[in-house]
Amino acid sequence: MPHILDGKKVAQKLKEQLKVEIDNIKLKFKRVPGLAVIQVGNVAASSVYVKAKTKAANEVGINVFDHHLKDTIEQGELLNLINQLNNHNDVDGILVQLPLPKSFNEQKILDSITPEKDADGFHPINVGKLSISQKNDENLLIPCTPFGCLLLLKELNIDLVGKNAVVIGRSNIVGKPMAQLLIKESCTVTIVHSKTVDIEKICKKADILIAAIGKPELVNKNWVKDGAIVIDVGINRIKLNENKSKLVGDVFFNEVKENTMAISPVPGGVGPMTIACLLRNTTTSCKNRLA
Amino acid sequence: MPHILDGKKVAQKLKEQLKVEIDNIKLKFKRVPGLAVIQVGNVAASSVYVKAKTKAANEVGINVFDHHLKDTIEQGELLNLINQLNNHNDVDGILVQLPLPKSFNEQKILDSITPEKDADGFHPINVGKLSISQKNDENLLIPCTPFGCLLLLKELNIDLVGKNAVVIGRSNIVGKPMAQLLIKESCTVTIVHSKTVDIEKICKKADILIAAIGKPELVNKNWVKDGAIVIDVGINRIKLNENKSKLVGDVFFNEVKENTMAISPVPGGVGPMTIACLLRNTTTSCKNRLA
Repeated sequence: MPHILDGKKVAQKLKEQLKVEIDNIKLKFKRVPGLAVIQVGNVAASSVYVKAKTKAANEVGINVFDHHLKDTIEQGELLNLINQLNNHNDVDGILVQLPLPKSFNEQKILDSITPEKDADGFHPINVGKLSISQKNDENLLIPCTPFGCLLLLKELNIDLVGKNAVVIGRSNIVGKPMAQLLIKESCTVTIVHSKTVDIEKICKKADILIAAIGKPELVNKNWVKDGAIVIDVGINRIKLNENKSKLVGDVFFNEVKENTMAISPVPGGVGPMTIACLLRNTTTSCKNRLA
Repeated sequence: MPHILDGKKVAQKLKEQLKVEIDNIKLKFKRVPGLAVIQVGNVAASSVYVKAKTKAANEVGINVFDHHLKDTIEQGELLNLINQLNNHNDVDGILVQLPLPKSFNEQKILDSITPEKDADGFHPINVGKLSISQKNDENLLIPCTPFGCLLLLKELNIDLVGKNAVVIGRSNIVGKPMAQLLIKESCTVTIVHSKTVDIEKICKKADILIAAIGKPELVNKNWVKDGAIVIDVGINRIKLNENKSKLVGDVFFNEVKENTMAISPVPGGVGPMTIACLLRNTTTSCKNRLA
């Protein structure tokens, strides 16, 4: 039977560690880490994420500064707000919930967050540091989803050195930083994507397969080697009938799971880890600023 | 017969393009790009590189500011010099020839170069921008050796999309940025290294094989698929007898070449491209600063 990688449980464990760290910070510095959460407009999925992030932050004792803006605001107003938060002493992390409305230049907005408060780890200087550093250091700010995937893998207590890892997808948010993390764990890393020839065949050789493509249940048993570890980053809503829908990953879970060594489900796999890693980054950022 | 990728010739072509660009800058802005070259101590290989870089810069009309320091200087003095050069208006690029003496913190020195004058493309913010950007943009500062490899590949006028590229080596100077460049060209990219299991077998599947390991002639015909393109980044000096030595690459050229589609020799392959790309970065940096 495969090991089902329980993201909720692992996230809970990380959150309990963070709670202890935050209690120590409180004791020593008379303050708690602060996270500013910026949402522009009312995209339903974004509202769900912001709510979940806020709740989780409160649970571990992080102070949330909530900024919910109308989608009619100008880019300049958002840049002004970020500038204020960059200079606000009690704010350690700044999160801009993506996607932003089409009229915004997303990269420009992300670049305007001061790197030391970059809770998502998307700022070029943090992306560069992640690439350059020899280890997945404690004080790096690391994109939350790939870092969550790595922590799930580590939960298995297996030796990652020399493992053949294949990352499906080359996004800046998941695929590329995931590859960086796995290279530093001494995996052999292949990045495949929409232009890859024989993608199934390459994936079928993976000891560790990370699916981050955004295509519902694309990865079926033809893609997965017996005994592989499969991490599913996808969150896709599919319609069952007029009134019903459900969330599925990029992996055809029911077909694939039997022959894996371990697999993460959707929901309840990577999702909770992403949120826990956001709290970890905020706490790391607070510790870096107080050091 | 394989195509021998003549780095000298391709570098010369790039240098001629740069010369035209520099003439235009001179005409329009009444100045030429400036490159500060810093060497600490007298490592023989470093002196050879610095001399070659200076000569090439002069050829295309770049003004070289030469700073040859004794290896007895303190790290603080070097940081002061870099700070002066960061603020010097006629300096567009700053190059610190590596390796530095053991007592220096190399990453700290590299980080102290202002990103806009980072001629080697090693600063975290430029590393991050290289990773994030969707294209291998004209105005990025890109590590010279991997960029030189890419320009050699492009010289073949083949479609890189979907090609299976394997990069041997995961250094910050070559392996990692090489992977970034190839991902953006839509290759399927695998990074292999000292911990990789079955490294020969993986390399043998490559359409494009980039060797950057620093082990003389390690890559023999068992590593190379018939019809592959092989780029050899290695520069290793091996002793022939008491008095004689010669330069060889990481690839066993004479054995491998026959069955390749194209292969770069050592010397005369990647080496001249690295230098030409340094001149390209200095010119790019000058254009960015004047824009």
